[in-house]
Amino acid sequence: MKWNLSSDQMPQAWFNVAPHLIEPLQPPLHPGTREPVGPDDLAPLFPTALIAQEMSAEPWIDIPGEVIDVLRLWRPTPLVRARRLEQALDTPARIYYKDESVSPAGSHKPNTAVPQAYYNKAEGIGRLATETGAGQWGSALSFASALFGLECKVYMVRISYEQKPYRRVMMETWGGNVEPSPVDEPGHPGSLGSAISDAVRDVVARDDSHYSLGSVLNHVLLHQTVIGLEAKEQLALAGEERPDIVIASCGGGSNLGGITGPFVPDADVDLVAVEPSSCPTLTEGRFEYDFGDTAGLTPLLQMYTLGHDFVPSTIHAGGLRYHGDSPIISNLVKTGRMRAVAYPQGKVFEAAVQFARTQGSIPAPETSHAIRATIDEALRAKEEGVERVILFCYSGHGMLDLGAYDSYIHGNMVE
Amino acid sequence: MKWNLSSDQMPQAWFNVAPHLIEPLQPPLHPGTREPVGPDDLAPLFPTALIAQEMSAEPWIDIPGEVIDVLRLWRPTPLVRARRLEQALDTPARIYYKDESVSPAGSHKPNTAVPQAYYNKAEGIGRLATETGAGQWGSALSFASALFGLECKVYMVRISYEQKPYRRVMMETWGGNVEPSPVDEPGHPGSLGSAISDAVRDVVARDDSHYSLGSVLNHVLLHQTVIGLEAKEQLALAGEERPDIVIASCGGGSNLGGITGPFVPDADVDLVAVEPSSCPTLTEGRFEYDFGDTAGLTPLLQMYTLGHDFVPSTIHAGGLRYHGDSPIISNLVKTGRMRAVAYPQGKVFEAAVQFARTQGSIPAPETSHAIRATIDEALRAKEEGVERVILFCYSGHGMLDLGAYDSYIHGNMVE
Repeated sequence: MKWNLSSDQMPQAWFNVAPHLIEPLQPPLHPGTREPVGPDDLAPLFPTALIAQEMSAEPWIDIPGEVIDVLRLWRPTPLVRARRLEQALDTPARIYYKDESVSPAGSHKPNTAVPQAYYNKAEGIGRLATETGAGQWGSALSFASALFGLECKVYMVRISYEQKPYRRVMMETWGGNVEPSPVDEPGHPGSLGSAISDAVRDVVARDDSHYSLGSVLNHVLLHQTVIGLEAKEQLALAGEERPDIVIASCGGGSNLGGITGPFVPDADVDLVAVEPSSCPTLTEGRFEYDFGDTAGLTPLLQMYTLGHDFVPSTIHAGGLRYHGDSPIISNLVKTGRMRAVAYPQGKVFEAAVQFARTQGSIPAPETSHAIRATIDEALRAKEEGVERVILFCYSGHGMLDLGAYDSYIHGNMVE
Repeated sequence: MKWNLSSDQMPQAWFNVAPHLIEPLQPPLHPGTREPVGPDDLAPLFPTALIAQEMSAEPWIDIPGEVIDVLRLWRPTPLVRARRLEQALDTPARIYYKDESVSPAGSHKPNTAVPQAYYNKAEGIGRLATETGAGQWGSALSFASALFGLECKVYMVRISYEQKPYRRVMMETWGGNVEPSPVDEPGHPGSLGSAISDAVRDVVARDDSHYSLGSVLNHVLLHQTVIGLEAKEQLALAGEERPDIVIASCGGGSNLGGITGPFVPDADVDLVAVEPSSCPTLTEGRFEYDFGDTAGLTPLLQMYTLGHDFVPSTIHAGGLRYHGDSPIISNLVKTGRMRAVAYPQGKVFEAAVQFARTQGSIPAPETSHAIRATIDEALRAKEEGVERVILFCYSGHGMLDLGAYDSYIHGNMVE
């Protein structure tokens, strides 16, 4: 069972979670002076519109018409009730998922790639550079750049570049230019942190280019709130007053921030972040100021971090291999508004295959973290004998991750 | 711009094109006696419900509720207006496409895999065997079998098995058992015809198994008419009285028959089949009785054919490499109700990349044949200065075909 909204029912404004936080966000610090950064410090990297959004305290921010026109290529996305999974689990829980896999790039990432490309284009920028882990973000930015006529350079974490050649081809199909990172250490598997360093170095050396980040920052989470806003409307169509639990996977925090953001003011909704045991930023990291990248070129952010030189093991959920976390997500966890759980990848793929064999769709490894937690919550509801409404973010499909399924199915997966 | 129907607006009956043909379909002939086959001859291969559908002259056939329940996992599929492609072509044509890529298997194939699995299960069959070319059909039947608790054995054309390992993994994720074909000639690239022989040999040797075919036969095209039925309703929502042209790619003819079937009675709607130049069944084949498979095990069908021993070159659109064609499609072409065009694969991928860079989505190579013809029709409308409504079938996504894009983008594609 699916609930669709029509094209003209897309949200017209993004929801800003900042005014709803229990404690205010602390500003980023300049990597040299360790003083709070101002808009001028960020101008070499981002257009002024995005810098303003990054620091905004406005509760709602209008979505430009040109952005809506592109998002409508696939939005609003469906809300789906996972009845067959419920039946297989024999649970009284009602499980809904917001299907972000229907975008051209196959994930939620275009929700922010499109406005980022738009605002850069509007301010006269001709070229964007970025990093990508699993390739979801680089694909999304290549796609958005193609639609706005921008050049796009992508530094791809080397282990993903090697494990996922089709992700590179996808970016190239949209005209993107892809290079493995770290660029100066050919044998290194790479990390998001070091790929960010490569991209930042690229743009500060050129006048025509800006940097673009696919997660972590406030404006990125802002753009992703279309997920949660649509889901709220669709749950009402499905006859649900509100979800009891909202679940999403967490790497940098963008799909999580997007689906949970609009529910932050609803104090009785339980918000859950799911991360890999091998990169347990929220469950085992420290809450402190740290660099966003390995080389220490970015401002310092107040967040949960494993240390900016942390190199996680090469699990298949490449998009969740980040040493830090979104300041907004970190703030929510620190203040107790959100909780975090971690799973090893074997348990995650077990959930992924169960989902595929009941609901049909094959999820991305990142998404499968949310599915694992959803299944466990549904089983808890069964144990406790309570009806519970669970909403999770189906952040992306696994069509480019079938190598990981191959390992799992044939017993070759490392925990 | 998308037009969605809600889950309860799915068609409740399939549209049977047989009563609307200008000349009646001729019956299949027994491979031994060359006499018309009856239901009993087909009983070792198919359940009685499907045999009845194969021979039915009823104008509508009800869709069982259990089938609708599964189809609703992704149906109704969206109708999308390709405005950005129109703008890039500067055409007065209005281009719509029916997006069948949103199914779990990524193509239109589950539309018939689901009822086939259902009817076999209902008649006590525990195992299905089939062939697959590009892997779309084997994926769809593995998916449908998983949902109905059937075993599924897939004989996969060897060249696709080798070129597309992820297709195998996809089938295995749903529990399918995949073997390259021809099973007895390890060096042979294979063809749909020889894979059909392998699957038929498999099921006639066992009591618990039936055969399942993903295209060609009347009941398969019948099940696919949900595509055209939904598209008719959605075009009306979009304010279009009717399409002027309906276009789809043609291998065995199932997505083509599905989208065009309900338009066959509308005599002023131009119906177009698009095939690869390297396997030009409709444009260069002979209209005669021929075997459906290489070994001559199946009944003979009256159809356009290149000869049942024809082995097409190993183009990337593996799903279009079939020596014959659906009797219904052949009948429509023979009687002038439908026309056929053929394209070389370089022209097809040029269209695919143009589509990806305007509309965002990356199409399957098979689907890209329809896109090539659509672009050419839109350019013809521009030359002639007429508004024209073009509907095409976006039969599948290209997420598992990125190797082909790699060849094209880097100039390594053979014409």
